[in-house]
Amino acid sequence: MNTQDTICALATPPGGAIAVIRVSGTNAVSITDSIFSKPIKDAEGYSLYFGQIMDMDGKELDEVLVSIFRNPHSYTGEDCTEISCHGSSYIVQNLLESLIWNGARQAKPGEFTMRAYLNGKLDLSQAEAVADLIASSTQTTHQMAMNQLRGKFSHELSDLQGQLLHLTSLLELELDFNDQDVEFANRQQLSELMDKVEKHISQLADSFQMGNAIKNGIPVAIIGAPNVGKSTLLNALVGEERALVSNIQGTTRDLIEDTTQIDGITFRFIDTAGIRKTLNKLEQMGIERSIQAAEKAKIVLLMTENDVSFPELRFRENQVVLQVINKCDITMPSTSYLYHRQPTGNLFHISAAKGDGIELLRKALVSAASMPTNLDASHSVVTNVRHYTALRQALEALRRAKQAFANQMPTDLVAEDLRQCLHHLGEITGSEITSEDVLQNIFSHFCVGK
Amino acid sequence: MNTQDTICALATPPGGAIAVIRVSGTNAVSITDSIFSKPIKDAEGYSLYFGQIMDMDGKELDEVLVSIFRNPHSYTGEDCTEISCHGSSYIVQNLLESLIWNGARQAKPGEFTMRAYLNGKLDLSQAEAVADLIASSTQTTHQMAMNQLRGKFSHELSDLQGQLLHLTSLLELELDFNDQDVEFANRQQLSELMDKVEKHISQLADSFQMGNAIKNGIPVAIIGAPNVGKSTLLNALVGEERALVSNIQGTTRDLIEDTTQIDGITFRFIDTAGIRKTLNKLEQMGIERSIQAAEKAKIVLLMTENDVSFPELRFRENQVVLQVINKCDITMPSTSYLYHRQPTGNLFHISAAKGDGIELLRKALVSAASMPTNLDASHSVVTNVRHYTALRQALEALRRAKQAFANQMPTDLVAEDLRQCLHHLGEITGSEITSEDVLQNIFSHFCVGK
Repeated sequence: MNTQDTICALATPPGGAIAVIRVSGTNAVSITDSIFSKPIKDAEGYSLYFGQIMDMDGKELDEVLVSIFRNPHSYTGEDCTEISCHGSSYIVQNLLESLIWNGARQAKPGEFTMRAYLNGKLDLSQAEAVADLIASSTQTTHQMAMNQLRGKFSHELSDLQGQLLHLTSLLELELDFNDQDVEFANRQQLSELMDKVEKHISQLADSFQMGNAIKNGIPVAIIGAPNVGKSTLLNALVGEERALVSNIQGTTRDLIEDTTQIDGITFRFIDTAGIRKTLNKLEQMGIERSIQAAEKAKIVLLMTENDVSFPELRFRENQVVLQVINKCDITMPSTSYLYHRQPTGNLFHISAAKGDGIELLRKALVSAASMPTNLDASHSVVTNVRHYTALRQALEALRRAKQAFANQMPTDLVAEDLRQCLHHLGEITGSEITSEDVLQNIFSHFCVGK
Repeated sequence: MNTQDTICALATPPGGAIAVIRVSGTNAVSITDSIFSKPIKDAEGYSLYFGQIMDMDGKELDEVLVSIFRNPHSYTGEDCTEISCHGSSYIVQNLLESLIWNGARQAKPGEFTMRAYLNGKLDLSQAEAVADLIASSTQTTHQMAMNQLRGKFSHELSDLQGQLLHLTSLLELELDFNDQDVEFANRQQLSELMDKVEKHISQLADSFQMGNAIKNGIPVAIIGAPNVGKSTLLNALVGEERALVSNIQGTTRDLIEDTTQIDGITFRFIDTAGIRKTLNKLEQMGIERSIQAAEKAKIVLLMTENDVSFPELRFRENQVVLQVINKCDITMPSTSYLYHRQPTGNLFHISAAKGDGIELLRKALVSAASMPTNLDASHSVVTNVRHYTALRQALEALRRAKQAFANQMPTDLVAEDLRQCLHHLGEITGSEITSEDVLQNIFSHFCVGK
């Protein structure tokens, strides 16, 4: 991991009117200067120049804008330049070659952000938020990434670390004076402090389920007897012909998934095979998968025409089940007012084929998701598996410490577990990470040029 | 064509680490100021700011870099800003909405460059060179676009226009004094001047064939009896498995085309059906197309195993025919030295299957193309159909003028034809174009954001 050299990369996608090439490192400005028509070697940070850029052979390649940034006031914390040229593949290729010929090297994915981390411009969780920010496509994912980038999550963690350090130091002080049988810490207070920290870490870890759902969509299973119109409902909800529809029972065999956004929340709809008694092996397997999908989903749309019940389905306490009566345009044509009236209980009347009643159902889905459409700034939501794993490990260590403490185990054992907990929290922001492998792994998921 | 308002567009392709949004027009700076965390309303041109950009609701959307450019020192000649943000679709979308909400409007394709033209920053031929520059993928196309962008072609045209104007004014002066039977212009000199201008315009028009070949590739037809290895040769030349190869006669029925670059020159290879006597209607049609392809190509690779000749083929004078003997590894294994020796005449020995002798053939193609691999700056090459059409029309008008002059027709008729010629030359740089339709048509081929 050489961070002494100067790196360069295209930061925009290939094609387009404009391309931006980034250069960062000790020699960023002098290397750019050596292929630019204007002298910029001694240019100040935040200055901007228009001129000609040269290829390897010193021939004019393009007219460009060059921005100069000086250490530490740049994205990476190093000297940086950004060259804005025409988006031609020939120009971009030759400009990069010209920079490399003059002493820069091609950056690896995420290497600019990794340098920003190594130079203390961002902690690890903020650096990861940069990748999330670029990938975000809804208001909620965007806001989660912005909160994390602004350091909200990092501050919360550093607050927790402070409390744990306080705890540990009190315990270790006691340890130092062990032979004198002194108790510096009030055991009751220590225990309460551990409970408080445990609750906070536990909340953060729990938020991962929501964070993950926000990122990947809330699973909604569409369940019912054959031919009740499950696939028609899927198509009505996602607004396109996703699932094959026919009036033949059992048209859907495989689970069909599709995501759509309602009020900025991503839903992942799972269309399933109709449930009924059958001797057909293939159909039985499909039904088995329907039942599994229903069990895993956060929301179940249970479609029935009459009073069909499915004894094979067992719902979890935190699942939301919305009962949907389809084909109301045929079976109860005089009750179309039901399409627009807030249903009693969780019973919805719709005509999936005509799109009637779907709007009310979509609203119910949004409220069943109980997702903040506008995340407030007071709660961090964990969206990163690496963070979640570290939080779980921190929680385990803390619980071991609590247990040991409650069992009046030797103080140094308790302190050791607390230090473990601290270590795992530190992994998230990188204050405890120095391993190259871990860093390479984190930044290799970035795009080149970031 | 409203050019009073302020336009905005994404200038980079969707995706990537960084996106650049361009804003241009009278209110470019004040609109950007209204959604930016730092006051930039009175910022100077060529200044650069880091800060937060807000969405329509005034909420922080991203951390961005804003570059300011002041009329006339900008690409469009108007006040401009460039906002460099993270390349997330959510951010780009909301940033554009925020600009539009504050008074900008979405730019049409090429509208920034059109404004640069309307504000006199570029003439039309230079503006078109911008699109060519972005599309260029080889050194030659890049250099042609750069030459045109630098105004080389424009200067050549304006020089021609100057000479024609001089001619016309001499003739018109004579016209004014017509009743006095005065001859201001020496008729011999006038005639020579017309010849000179005609020759120059004619050269420019003729360069279009080369310009077009450089842009779209030089057509090379691969012709021969069935099963001589035409498709194998195509694959060897383009370096991939493009054409289906088998030892069954007549595997290739359709013309298969593929382009590849050799020494920076683009070649368009056309693999054809093998030529032989046959009663099969389908095969006859394929052979007919092979013969047509051979007639149209600039270079013909005539593949024969023995002394087969094709009386049905007639070559034009300016076509280059290279005779290729394939399968030399089998038929004449002791003569492998031929693979590397400059052939006598245009006879090449190769083994397409083994790739032997291909290098020499590629070199011969480059020299047969007689293309400048490195265009010198002394000759303009016309690559644009619009320019070519205007040059042809200018040439026709000039030839009419010459004819009329030679036939001692009234001077005002000669002058009228010369003015026509001037008009068509003026169309190229836009000094004679004011029609909105023509402008819209030219700039609609640009990408948005340019």
